[in-house]
Amino acid sequence: MKREVLLNLKKNPLEYISGEQLSNTLGVSRTAIWKVINELKREGYIIESSSKKGYRLSPDSDVLNSFEISEELKTKVLGRNIIYLDKIDSTNNYAKRIALEGCEEGTLVVADYQTNGRGRLGRGWSSPNKKGIWMSLVLRPNIPFEEVQMITLAASVAVVQALYDIAQIKAGIKWPNDIIINGKKVCGILVEMNMEIESINFLVLGIGVNVNQQKEDFPEELLDKATSLKMYLETLGMQKILKRSELIAAILLKFEEIYDKVKCGDFEYVISEWRKYSVTLGKEVSIIYKNQQFRGVAQDITKDGKLIVKCEDGTVKEVFSGEVSIRGLLGYS
Amino acid sequence: MKREVLLNLKKNPLEYISGEQLSNTLGVSRTAIWKVINELKREGYIIESSSKKGYRLSPDSDVLNSFEISEELKTKVLGRNIIYLDKIDSTNNYAKRIALEGCEEGTLVVADYQTNGRGRLGRGWSSPNKKGIWMSLVLRPNIPFEEVQMITLAASVAVVQALYDIAQIKAGIKWPNDIIINGKKVCGILVEMNMEIESINFLVLGIGVNVNQQKEDFPEELLDKATSLKMYLETLGMQKILKRSELIAAILLKFEEIYDKVKCGDFEYVISEWRKYSVTLGKEVSIIYKNQQFRGVAQDITKDGKLIVKCEDGTVKEVFSGEVSIRGLLGYS
Repeated sequence: MKREVLLNLKKNPLEYISGEQLSNTLGVSRTAIWKVINELKREGYIIESSSKKGYRLSPDSDVLNSFEISEELKTKVLGRNIIYLDKIDSTNNYAKRIALEGCEEGTLVVADYQTNGRGRLGRGWSSPNKKGIWMSLVLRPNIPFEEVQMITLAASVAVVQALYDIAQIKAGIKWPNDIIINGKKVCGILVEMNMEIESINFLVLGIGVNVNQQKEDFPEELLDKATSLKMYLETLGMQKILKRSELIAAILLKFEEIYDKVKCGDFEYVISEWRKYSVTLGKEVSIIYKNQQFRGVAQDITKDGKLIVKCEDGTVKEVFSGEVSIRGLLGYS
Repeated sequence: MKREVLLNLKKNPLEYISGEQLSNTLGVSRTAIWKVINELKREGYIIESSSKKGYRLSPDSDVLNSFEISEELKTKVLGRNIIYLDKIDSTNNYAKRIALEGCEEGTLVVADYQTNGRGRLGRGWSSPNKKGIWMSLVLRPNIPFEEVQMITLAASVAVVQALYDIAQIKAGIKWPNDIIINGKKVCGILVEMNMEIESINFLVLGIGVNVNQQKEDFPEELLDKATSLKMYLETLGMQKILKRSELIAAILLKFEEIYDKVKCGDFEYVISEWRKYSVTLGKEVSIIYKNQQFRGVAQDITKDGKLIVKCEDGTVKEVFSGEVSIRGLLGYS
């Protein structure tokens, strides 16, 4: 019944629908409608009511739950099983737990709030309540360890494509796992694996996107390195609340397309798209890899996703993973 | 109090101790002693009682629990936190779950019975009740993925050394993860990892040892490939119940010594010990690695644990992991 009311409110998003019309359509009393509307408001939906015109779902309404995501979803497999949590330590941790118990490929764990959000290498990831996308996908690809980095690159490409699709935002990719807008980090990707020596049991792909944070939502020390989509759009003079469910669905759709290729060993599309969006190639970089630090110029990536760096001493290194700083970006000068 | 009685019974293992003496030593009534003895019997201890001589712990008593293991343990870190379970799906699964929750390095999970014991590549591992060692260690070494195979080799060496130490059994190692006696498998090792692309979060080392199985404890189809220590000793004319707790402690002690070296990047000792016990080197092998099958002769292992195979076509391959069949062993002819 709640769903029915919501679906009716969404049908003509800019127009009001009267309580009477809702009550007739759904065959329940107007009091029942009124109760449901209040319940929806408690769940975070912004519903404008006018005694004359009725009810209208505000375009500023950004509620995250399984229903909202499912409504937007156009994928075949990814996100077809959704676990929404209002609060969790870390969606990656939760996803690892349920993956151990055997949850299906493509299971999506998404939370409004992470109390202990994580980035790579044990770092934290600020995940304030209802301000961003904090999600993890459980994947069970039959690929060897050496190809795992392709999943990170594929996810990066998917996020960039999705941002352009739903908001015409042009983002760049800093190798291997950060999405950059205007020189600041707007999204991070964290891949974790459970494996035996010869095979991957499962993989958890964590994606964190800063969506609707304001300046004051960021910890002081991150302000020169991180931004949100909302803050970026404001610099363009646009006041806009992005719907997280819509962006999640767009990311999953783009990712599914690329993931299907990667699973079959077809990396060409990912690599060529990645090159297009790279903010790393051609740049001076400083890299820490296997306890060694070296500087050079990022020249290209290999067809299996390693970064090719021409070092200061003239040697050329292929880097599978590591800490990359790019001159002129995120505080490295 | 139960512990005190046990400790007193263990003090002079071949001699009887009277109920009166126990009651005087511990300062409790003889009825209390009698009750504790019965409780111990229910826990599986074989206690011989004689109305004249008193009580004696039978040398055939093989009870597994945290107390028994701790009593034998001489390690610094490994097994200092013991989780004993009378029955579990798989100790590796349990260990992975508690490792996700943050349990400490060296935590030992050990069970009397695994309902869903696992070998490599999703295969089963027969784990009948109280007949073997079904255990998993949680390790948190700071090593890269490429060195993980060293943990398997180190564990193999530790098991071989421990078997010799406690029962003068000479076992061999089939690369990468099986311990062989008389051409049959007596122990398997399964390493599973939880990792990010650049680092290992934790590693679960599963070790299964067939200790006291009789012929009828094995599934029919395994009889020509697997054996137990007891069955092997019987072929030598020895009737002996091996104490699992003693063997566990011996394996952990040997493994700790080697593990400490591996963690520091010192592989020399492992590799040279491994060569000594290998039943793989010099043999004709058939290998399935990355969906390719090839035959050749196993020549050596590299200093980081890869198997060097001289193939029939004259090429030399280094194999990181894979399915290895050795001519003349475990049914490959």
